[in-house]
Amino acid sequence: MDSKQTSLPPKVASLLKSFPTVLTLDVLWGDMDANQHVNNTKYLSYTETARVQYLETIRSQRDDPAMATIIPMVKENVIKYKFPVTYPDTVSVGVRVDPKSIKPDRFDFICLIVSQKHNIVVCDVRTHIVAFDLSTNRKANMSDEFLKGLEQWERRVDSGWELVVEENAQL
Amino acid sequence: MDSKQTSLPPKVASLLKSFPTVLTLDVLWGDMDANQHVNNTKYLSYTETARVQYLETIRSQRDDPAMATIIPMVKENVIKYKFPVTYPDTVSVGVRVDPKSIKPDRFDFICLIVSQKHNIVVCDVRTHIVAFDLSTNRKANMSDEFLKGLEQWERRVDSGWELVVEENAQL
Amino acid sequence: MDSKQTSLPPKVASLLKSFPTVLTLDVLWGDMDANQHVNNTKYLSYTETARVQYLETIRSQRDDPAMATIIPMVKENVIKYKFPVTYPDTVSVGVRVDPKSIKPDRFDFICLIVSQKHNIVVCDVRTHIVAFDLSTNRKANMSDEFLKGLEQWERRVDSGWELVVEENAQL
Amino acid sequence: MDSKQTSLPPKVASLLKSFPTVLTLDVLWGDMDANQHVNNTKYLSYTETARVQYLETIRSQRDDPAMATIIPMVKENVIKYKFPVTYPDTVSVGVRVDPKSIKPDRFDFICLIVSQKHNIVVCDVRTHIVAFDLSTNRKANMSDEFLKGLEQWERRVDSGWELVVEENAQL
Repeated sequence: MDSKQTSLPPKVASLLKSFPTVLTLDVLWGDMDANQHVNNTKYLSYTETARVQYLETIRSQRDDPAMATIIPMVKENVIKYKFPVTYPDTVSVGVRVDPKSIKPDRFDFICLIVSQKHNIVVCDVRTHIVAFDLSTNRKANMSDEFLKGLEQWERRVDSGWELVVEENAQL
Repeated sequence: MDSKQTSLPPKVASLLKSFPTVLTLDVLWGDMDANQHVNNTKYLSYTETARVQYLETIRSQRDDPAMATIIPMVKENVIKYKFPVTYPDTVSVGVRVDPKSIKPDRFDFICLIVSQKHNIVVCDVRTHIVAFDLSTNRKANMSDEFLKGLEQWERRVDSGWELVVEENAQL
Repeated sequence: MDSKQTSLPPKVASLLKSFPTVLTLDVLWGDMDANQHVNNTKYLSYTETARVQYLETIRSQRDDPAMATIIPMVKENVIKYKFPVTYPDTVSVGVRVDPKSIKPDRFDFICLIVSQKHNIVVCDVRTHIVAFDLSTNRKANMSDEFLKGLEQWERRVDSGWELVVEENAQL
Repeated sequence: MDSKQTSLPPKVASLLKSFPTVLTLDVLWGDMDANQHVNNTKYLSYTETARVQYLETIRSQRDDPAMATIIPMVKENVIKYKFPVTYPDTVSVGVRVDPKSIKPDRFDFICLIVSQKHNIVVCDVRTHIVAFDLSTNRKANMSDEFLKGLEQWERRVDSGWELVVEENAQL
């Protein structure tokens, strides 16, 4: 576990216990909009950074040249708003991969945003990722090294992770 | 049709012909992120303003005190990214209500974002709305005046609109 | 004059008559913060895009390879807030160069933001620019072509422009 | 000293030792723009939140009804960019009041933003504040309680603070 996760308040740590990467952020006053709540678009910024950090961890642990050219492209975001966040607050953003979503060329991230002020889940974001090869400018399959990296990183927490990459009929 | 819609380029107007409200916006340079595309969160800002404008039109056409206390609350956004937008570009955002989504206390907005540089749909956003009563701090049903306003506004374009408000078992 | 400037409302056109580039933008609802005014940071985004457009115009009119490697770097912004902007509004952003500020390696942009709802100047931004050479990673002098481009572009409006590039003791 | 300040890295703490309030923030990936640096507008967001936190501290320490109606209004921001910030980084934002700037109805905040990755000052922001009375919608003088609160808060660090409120000829 990284230092950020071990220092979480117990209730927040419990809500995010199946998430291998957790990013903790202070809400900015300017994140609020005229409704005096954090603007709906900001939750997406928080999860975007958490996903970048997750992927950077995997890249840093694997020596795989394919990771430089085959990049994850966001195709869809499904954002469920559970509770309005207000400044001041500190949010912890858990990010994991849904093992059932993995196909050779795609997978889903699941993100949960927890308010440390309220100790509840405030937002839940599912992000559909497609692998894209910058060298050919086309969709591609992820490398085996990347998939092994995902699996190793997810297994550090008790997330019920079991990697089964099903054939992808869409490719 | 408002002036903004009538002045659309023909291909853009055609893509958005079933949308009663169309908002046209210039992309800011700062909307782009380090990938040199418009950041994924910005599409949500564009549709947010289009929805505000849509609702303001209905409010301005109806004399209904309920519209001041019963407000639309965003519960979910489903964002499908079709094509990366870059500065400079001008985007036209069409917004309409999905008639099949209407229940007494909820409905979905459908938004389509069209790039005027590329003449294609770049993003498609579905927003689930729940009516919320500020005076009781609880979910509520929409007023009849509001529903009539929706219907009247949607019927100004040929959107195949037919209002059928089904019973809402969830209330 | 470009079409954007000629189509300005008379009072706005008058306030911006000495600005060779004018960018007109619709304010987004989400540009407002919890004080229900456009957030102080947004004025800077509006002027940033206006400056990008100004420079792009000059680049497009001159065939000068130096413009690809010697870029303008923002060193300072001085932002004076005159009047709070609220959604809905349309703002017109005039941008010009202060002729008295020009040294071989630097100059100032002056931007004025005018509200079309109120027909007044809402914000005034001065941006100090230093020329930076990407090929050497150091400050540099601007090319003669670029300076001629500035002068030609500024002279299209009656801005009292007279180019006098004073020696720059700081280089 | 609050916990945030005592836990600063030594070099950062040294650069910010004369600042009574220090806010530490993680940079978001989406804070970067197409130049792959944190966008110029974001520094203003960071200091805005630091100022809000500073003022909230004073309000929470004083029982002064005037603080509810006489609010600080930002009239000007002077932003000096010293070094480009990139994700990932953590910035510490020090905020203090310039004692020489205090008049009965106005004062300046000085903010310094320090990069924890580079251990240097990356941005320096001066914010001119004018007291504004919401009950009369006019400029006003700050209350004595507020000025005492400023003084007490500034004196907790060795900032060479000496409060001299000069007559304000402009009122």
